[in-house]
Amino acid sequence: MKTITSVQNPVVKAARALAQAQERARAGAFLLDGEHMVQEALRVCPDRVRCLFVQEARAQRYAGLLKDAKADVYAVPEHVMEALTQVRAPQGVAAVCAQPPAAAPEAMEGRLVLLENVQDPGNVGTIVRTLDAAGFDGLLLTPGCADPFGPKALRASMGSALRVPVGRTPDAAEAVKALNARGYATLAATLDGTPFYDRPPLPDRLCLLVGNEGAGLQNATAQACRYRFRLPMRGGAESLNAAAAAAVFLYDLMNR
Amino acid sequence: MKTITSVQNPVVKAARALAQAQERARAGAFLLDGEHMVQEALRVCPDRVRCLFVQEARAQRYAGLLKDAKADVYAVPEHVMEALTQVRAPQGVAAVCAQPPAAAPEAMEGRLVLLENVQDPGNVGTIVRTLDAAGFDGLLLTPGCADPFGPKALRASMGSALRVPVGRTPDAAEAVKALNARGYATLAATLDGTPFYDRPPLPDRLCLLVGNEGAGLQNATAQACRYRFRLPMRGGAESLNAAAAAAVFLYDLMNR
Repeated sequence: MKTITSVQNPVVKAARALAQAQERARAGAFLLDGEHMVQEALRVCPDRVRCLFVQEARAQRYAGLLKDAKADVYAVPEHVMEALTQVRAPQGVAAVCAQPPAAAPEAMEGRLVLLENVQDPGNVGTIVRTLDAAGFDGLLLTPGCADPFGPKALRASMGSALRVPVGRTPDAAEAVKALNARGYATLAATLDGTPFYDRPPLPDRLCLLVGNEGAGLQNATAQACRYRFRLPMRGGAESLNAAAAAAVFLYDLMNR
Repeated sequence: MKTITSVQNPVVKAARALAQAQERARAGAFLLDGEHMVQEALRVCPDRVRCLFVQEARAQRYAGLLKDAKADVYAVPEHVMEALTQVRAPQGVAAVCAQPPAAAPEAMEGRLVLLENVQDPGNVGTIVRTLDAAGFDGLLLTPGCADPFGPKALRASMGSALRVPVGRTPDAAEAVKALNARGYATLAATLDGTPFYDRPPLPDRLCLLVGNEGAGLQNATAQACRYRFRLPMRGGAESLNAAAAAAVFLYDLMNR
């Protein structure tokens, strides 16, 4: 274990820079913090862990967690841990992780979710967690979506971002057409679709599309989909939160 | 329309104090901001709107919205609007609203949701929105829950907090026993229950219980419920976000 005492140390500076989405994309890495997340990373993808940080005063507590790590472990004082994690009372352990290799959209198989311009990182993270729980096979994102490897999205995904294959697509409507051509059932979640619970039987290869929190899916995207479904609104609310709607769709699709 | 120029004005000070949960409880009021929320308040509960604030530079834009308001309308400069709403680029319109009278738990009827120590205001607000959308009839909260009339919860509820009857209960397990005695089906959402999708037919009078984000329902609460149900976890995630789980439960209960 090495010791770092300053936020000016280049290893710390490089890790802190990962708070910016642009730098995460450039470095192909992200920072995760907290016992649960670090534990998951060491369990799910130990070879992608590039380095670890532990708060000096808690090194004892995390000795068991860190003993088998192959990457460098740095002991840091509290103020460096706070600077790293941007959290006021950090749990005292953090890691820099390489992002999983981006999945090629045309090679993704099984049950997929495509998010178009879902901007809230909490929603993106929650959807990653839910699609993992529902046993879906991958996620496609447009450039307008929040980064699933940003700190808020990572926290909301509770480690599922370490497991779920993520692909990027520049244009949702084009991605839908490519999926259609591969025989996929593409399902747009829209407020003006046909009733979801009266849907016909669907094939196993399907892709659910969820759009922006305010605007929903772009018209061209929804129109490209083979199916457009709405959830019933029985009370006064006009719509659901994007992550809540995704959960209802995913679990019902899983279950039938 | 009156004009206020200072954040020290007593009307503004009283409105700003509503950022604190304690003060909301004392005053029986809350502050909502943004065109959509103010519009909903004037539509759903015009008699509960105590006063309105509009940013001077946007008074013209909101003239139509505010013309039928019975309460006082105050024109304020941008810095006062920012201080009121705690938002950096506010939409320029806000209102102080009286809270709906608290519903007595023993008088609530129909399909209910009881939240025990759900601490995240975004989760509480999202659940309010979802239960409204699913046509459920009311919400019960323990003292450990985030306040549905706080700014984050209000935003997440998208106005549903203006419509949904909310009751308070000091103890979830006792509330469950009272519901059981009234013939209610009480359903605990837990990770160790029986499979939700294999459930027996349930009566129309039911209450879904959702617990704390980390700890779930307290043991005594789950044990007091007539049913304990879990959702399937098909992938690597161990659980769902509380609001996502609630959405899956509520929509499936609505639908059968």
